[in-house]
Amino acid sequence: MDKKALYSLSYGVFMLGVKSGTKTNGCITNTCIQVANSPVRVAFSVLNTNYTCDLLKESGVCTLSILDKTIPFQTIKYFGMQSGRDVDKMSELPLPVDDNGVPYLNWGASAVLSLKVTDSQDLGSHTLFIAEVTDAKKLSDNEPLTYAFYQSDIKPKADSAADKPVQKKIIGWRCRICNYVYEGETLPEEFYCPLCGHDASDFEPIYE
Amino acid sequence: MDKKALYSLSYGVFMLGVKSGTKTNGCITNTCIQVANSPVRVAFSVLNTNYTCDLLKESGVCTLSILDKTIPFQTIKYFGMQSGRDVDKMSELPLPVDDNGVPYLNWGASAVLSLKVTDSQDLGSHTLFIAEVTDAKKLSDNEPLTYAFYQSDIKPKADSAADKPVQKKIIGWRCRICNYVYEGETLPEEFYCPLCGHDASDFEPIYE
Repeated sequence: MDKKALYSLSYGVFMLGVKSGTKTNGCITNTCIQVANSPVRVAFSVLNTNYTCDLLKESGVCTLSILDKTIPFQTIKYFGMQSGRDVDKMSELPLPVDDNGVPYLNWGASAVLSLKVTDSQDLGSHTLFIAEVTDAKKLSDNEPLTYAFYQSDIKPKADSAADKPVQKKIIGWRCRICNYVYEGETLPEEFYCPLCGHDASDFEPIYE
Repeated sequence: MDKKALYSLSYGVFMLGVKSGTKTNGCITNTCIQVANSPVRVAFSVLNTNYTCDLLKESGVCTLSILDKTIPFQTIKYFGMQSGRDVDKMSELPLPVDDNGVPYLNWGASAVLSLKVTDSQDLGSHTLFIAEVTDAKKLSDNEPLTYAFYQSDIKPKADSAADKPVQKKIIGWRCRICNYVYEGETLPEEFYCPLCGHDASDFEPIYE
């Protein structure tokens, strides 16, 4: 199987906002499709190790802010590259909330969906949620951000391994997908990125 | 709810190929996301009225050809705008097959996935399938087709209602999404396109 073939799948990029009791959080996801009409339902997948996934399982309500091409990388980094277990993301960066009190992004987003989970399935690495769209609002006329555009134009370029002298020592591995850094010379073959779930083939060496 | 907000979701475009016994078929879909690792699984949604959906429920195996930007509109029309109940699409247009004997597109496609359904859920209008990727193959280095690019650059432009004199009689309604034609002066408000499942708000009038 050529796993690179999977890179041909097209995705948007989203900020998934959650609230359970007094706890709030948000993370970045790139999987959401409309799957049915009457009522309109969407499906999206969230990494099981994400704190957002825990809160969503508790409350069953969330927002999906559909990012547009004006989103700053720093916003994606803020929500996507640190855990809500370590940082109270929504206190440090207050956001508006929808009718369910769930925070959503009001910049760099072309629309926001308010969602109520109707079903979920634990798939091991991720949970797949099916949710009814209870509200939907346009936020801007900017072009929606695709995952391909994020990779080509938003994400800062990591130093290319090809530019490095080969004799330099490897001190870590960086996930090409989300920039997560694994410290150490040898990345285990069966390693999966704890941030975005991609496997060892998506990591590039970091040299001394 | 502003249903236009849902248009901000990004999608690819795919030819879903199926085989059940001696029956084969293929249709066009625009919903497929990777939802889990170990093993790699994808989720995709198919309109319940599609013949492809019936055959997939019978056999549980399919291919997903990920269309690229070189795909001719005629190919999309061939697979997407006529039913396998009326035309034996794969006999009239022979295609290569994967290891399971399921046809896939070898032009205008950047990759093909061979899929084995592991779970499905009937959502009324559509069925959501979860499938293991049993094989994946790159077919070209062309940029994958997004649904937005299909709408802007591949699909022929329908005559705009704005260009028509207002006194002309409406004789039918055309689905902006798939070009399906409803014959009659008045489109019922609760109408859903039998081809692509979009609702009455996606139809434009056809004048005499």
